[in-house]
Amino acid sequence: CRDYEGREYTFEEYFQRIRAFHGYAAPGLIIGGRMVDLALERLPAGILFDAICETSYCLPDAIQILTLCTTGNGWLRVIHLGRFALTLYDKYQGKGVRVSLNPARLDAWPEVKTWFYKLKPKAEQDTPLLRQQIRDAGSDLFTAREIQMQSQWLRGRELGKTVNCPLCGEAFPEKHGAICRGCQGEAPYE
Amino acid sequence: CRDYEGREYTFEEYFQRIRAFHGYAAPGLIIGGRMVDLALERLPAGILFDAICETSYCLPDAIQILTLCTTGNGWLRVIHLGRFALTLYDKYQGKGVRVSLNPARLDAWPEVKTWFYKLKPKAEQDTPLLRQQIRDAGSDLFTAREIQMQSQWLRGRELGKTVNCPLCGEAFPEKHGAICRGCQGEAPYE
Ligand SMILES: [Zn+2]
Ligand SMILES: [Zn+2]
Repeated sequence: CRDYEGREYTFEEYFQRIRAFHGYAAPGLIIGGRMVDLALERLPAGILFDAICETSYCLPDAIQILTLCTTGNGWLRVIHLGRFALTLYDKYQGKGVRVSLNPARLDAWPEVKTWFYKLKPKAEQDTPLLRQQIRDAGSDLFTAREIQMQSQWLRGRELGKTVNCPLCGEAFPEKHGAICRGCQGEAPYE
Repeated sequence: CRDYEGREYTFEEYFQRIRAFHGYAAPGLIIGGRMVDLALERLPAGILFDAICETSYCLPDAIQILTLCTTGNGWLRVIHLGRFALTLYDKYQGKGVRVSLNPARLDAWPEVKTWFYKLKPKAEQDTPLLRQQIRDAGSDLFTAREIQMQSQWLRGRELGKTVNCPLCGEAFPEKHGAICRGCQGEAPYE
């Protein structure tokens, strides 16, 4: 696959990057790398693009490894639609390409189907065969189509004014209310 | 700062990693690197840990660069409390350390305060001075405290059964309903 600067990675090189970032060479990352590649191939060269990922499982990390779109810079947003799909789109015009895994194609690649639908426990899956099928299938696993983002998604994110919480003393966005959300009961820890 | 394996980075080395991943050496990433370092210092060595980040601005990327906790492997979760804080905690017991930026400390570091509360437009901020103050302040900017995660946060994430949507034909988690969320109207594109 390739990254946003057009640098090509061999499978092994990409595996190394996956392991260093994600912890292990998950099949979803390997597939995701092909999906990013396909989307980049269809975007006009040199545009600034943002990313949408429709699942939080594995796929966001393929985007983060191969593009400059990340969780922390806001150019990648995960929306929990649960479909194995990503979209890369022109940051300003919102025209882009959506790439999704196409279930109708999976019958031709049974080990990929087994992994994706968890038809066998993980210990019984054939990992080398799975990786081979992902490689052999290439773009055959995917559907790509042009999309237009809705206009509200084209606004940059905006924190607004930062103020200090009268209860905990920490800084938070004024628009969250009179006290911060943590003090409103949303903190996940004691 | 250091990463989860104890590898120390000079400021310049860490800047290079920030630029390669996040796109630019944002102050929030530089501060975030110190926060991760402080949390790692206080965690027992060798435990498996997950991460919570209370803002989506910059800080998640400090965690992703310096630990193996990422958006795509699920070991990093962003909860939108809006406070500039992160927590690293034992994956199984939930005991951890929360590190937050302490607004009461910022008067001593006026360029950091100016940046954080956006007291001047970005073009008028003194970036070299800001970076110098972040460096000089070190851990003085932060509060660290031990926390215990609530038990529901200790369950691993679970997709459940995957089925195909009768409308769009794509795969999605059965628990999302009779049709996928995209077909329920939640997709952000035409
Ligand atoms: Zn508060
Ligand atoms: Zn659907």
